[in-house]
Amino acid sequence: MLNSSVAALIASITPVSNQQSLRIQTIIDQKTKPLGSLGQLENLALQLAQVLGDEPLQIKRPQMLIFAADHGIAAEGISIAPSDVTTQMVNNFLAGGAAINCFCQTNEIELHVIDAGIATEIKHPRLIQQAIARGTKNFCQQPAMTKAQANQCLALGAAIASEILDQGSNVIGFGEMGIGNSSSAAAMMAAILKVSADECVGRGTGISDHVLSKKLAIIESALRLHGENLTSPLEILSAVGGFEIGQIAGAMLAVAAQKKVILVDGFITTAAALLATQLAPACVDFMVFCHESNEQGHHRMLQFLDRQALLNLDLRLGEGTGAALALPLLHAAAKFYNDMASFESAGVTV
Amino acid sequence: MLNSSVAALIASITPVSNQQSLRIQTIIDQKTKPLGSLGQLENLALQLAQVLGDEPLQIKRPQMLIFAADHGIAAEGISIAPSDVTTQMVNNFLAGGAAINCFCQTNEIELHVIDAGIATEIKHPRLIQQAIARGTKNFCQQPAMTKAQANQCLALGAAIASEILDQGSNVIGFGEMGIGNSSSAAAMMAAILKVSADECVGRGTGISDHVLSKKLAIIESALRLHGENLTSPLEILSAVGGFEIGQIAGAMLAVAAQKKVILVDGFITTAAALLATQLAPACVDFMVFCHESNEQGHHRMLQFLDRQALLNLDLRLGEGTGAALALPLLHAAAKFYNDMASFESAGVTV
Repeated sequence: MLNSSVAALIASITPVSNQQSLRIQTIIDQKTKPLGSLGQLENLALQLAQVLGDEPLQIKRPQMLIFAADHGIAAEGISIAPSDVTTQMVNNFLAGGAAINCFCQTNEIELHVIDAGIATEIKHPRLIQQAIARGTKNFCQQPAMTKAQANQCLALGAAIASEILDQGSNVIGFGEMGIGNSSSAAAMMAAILKVSADECVGRGTGISDHVLSKKLAIIESALRLHGENLTSPLEILSAVGGFEIGQIAGAMLAVAAQKKVILVDGFITTAAALLATQLAPACVDFMVFCHESNEQGHHRMLQFLDRQALLNLDLRLGEGTGAALALPLLHAAAKFYNDMASFESAGVTV
Repeated sequence: MLNSSVAALIASITPVSNQQSLRIQTIIDQKTKPLGSLGQLENLALQLAQVLGDEPLQIKRPQMLIFAADHGIAAEGISIAPSDVTTQMVNNFLAGGAAINCFCQTNEIELHVIDAGIATEIKHPRLIQQAIARGTKNFCQQPAMTKAQANQCLALGAAIASEILDQGSNVIGFGEMGIGNSSSAAAMMAAILKVSADECVGRGTGISDHVLSKKLAIIESALRLHGENLTSPLEILSAVGGFEIGQIAGAMLAVAAQKKVILVDGFITTAAALLATQLAPACVDFMVFCHESNEQGHHRMLQFLDRQALLNLDLRLGEGTGAALALPLLHAAAKFYNDMASFESAGVTV
């Protein structure tokens, strides 16, 4: 059962209005270019105008939220690195040394790092402390978390997103760090899409063939173990999810409820997006899928959501890197929508 | 025969040194991320470091050069719009109302518009005047231009690029405007790749099936007409080229000679890049292919050059839009190369 506050949040999410779509599309079509010739940027401009409603379109104070947590499943040795690396990388984020720091700086995005459940407590003035527990349980033996914890993930994720939106942002990107989380994301994907594990499991950030086989076998056995408990989004999160994935899903719900833009990164954050759309289908209207990851299941997830990603740069890092790299395309879409001349204003006769 | 000044320019182009490649790759590999996990951005950082040599990597005063010209072939009615639209769109560029103006502004790129041979003379203080003639001849009846004009294209393109580089830029993007120029680019592609016209001809900015068939027939007949004269890059440019395509190729030669970065846009500028690499194969080392166009021959051109484009946004506009949109990825690549922590400096133990 969903907590009543989470259920109320979900009930408040409504689709974008299509009332203005024809008017928006006409603005786009009257720009001085052949119809449709700006391809995906036209779809993006349409979506931004539908979501944000205001004109001129403005991207205000873009934010990146990285949620970090550890995973009991990592004890199975099916990742490229041990759980310690979650803590080390979070320290790296806080010190400004990771890829996501670089991309947020270059694209002028404010970065927030959230402890959603890292195995080791990290004391740092800029780390947002909302750990559910010090890592999930090993989901090939037992549920990753209790249903109460799953509810808590959604509520805490929503709370931090609301707090950040209240500071005047209208675009929030999501990233993650958590050794083992591609296993959790793959298991969630299998449960939500109702496909076999081998369509969902991939190399994460780069495991070998041998470790990949082991990862697949473990996830298959976990799906068998939890099979009958995988009937609702909350049960899926509880059985095979992760604290960071659950908090991201909750945060996405809050952004959708406030009709702002959600930037979705790669495989793991798309698993969170899947969960959010299972809870509130209208969420997808607010999501910009920024990057199609190399992780094999990601393309299938995007197909399931009937969405296409903006970038395809062979990234397989996570952290929100794909989302941060895509932000300039939002600026470009808003700019052409706002400022490009129309055939009439420019005296072009096509 | 190439003019002696053009021949001297070509002779001065040397490949990037591979001496530093191992050192550069080691820097990239020691960053706090799994090996290769930044995908195409890693290749881009390697290329930028090889080309620019200096560290920290700096993108200095990026420039966009749009070359515009008209095409005699447009009289055949195989474009979406009449030749007049070249002039109208150039006026739109000069007034700041086109898509490329928007994308240059949002990504902080200085824009220059060059008359390489527009049918109508446009007087404007910011239009760079270097028209070869008021449009090419109709290449389905006669050569598009004389060999002297083809040489002049290369020389004038090189001159303006050198002048702009002298102002302190190290990245120059290329765009084009010219009704009919996808026909010229397709014919050049067929001649250079030695493939049939139907692999090269596409819808340009959006012609119908009927016009597409006509365009194909016309280009096939032009290739038969000029067949025996298509044996050198200069002859190909002269027979079926365009003034803007020739000037872009010349400009690319100058940028390569000075070991700076060339941003290649879509189908038409890639035809110019093909021509430049036929004249000086080492040019390709300096080229960043920014966008894979919807135009059907573009993918094949990139394969021929053994390069992959950064973006694939279904654009089919030209003007340099794909190149302008890709610039933030160069900033991101330079930033991670310069500033991302190494495993050692961050204390990460992967």
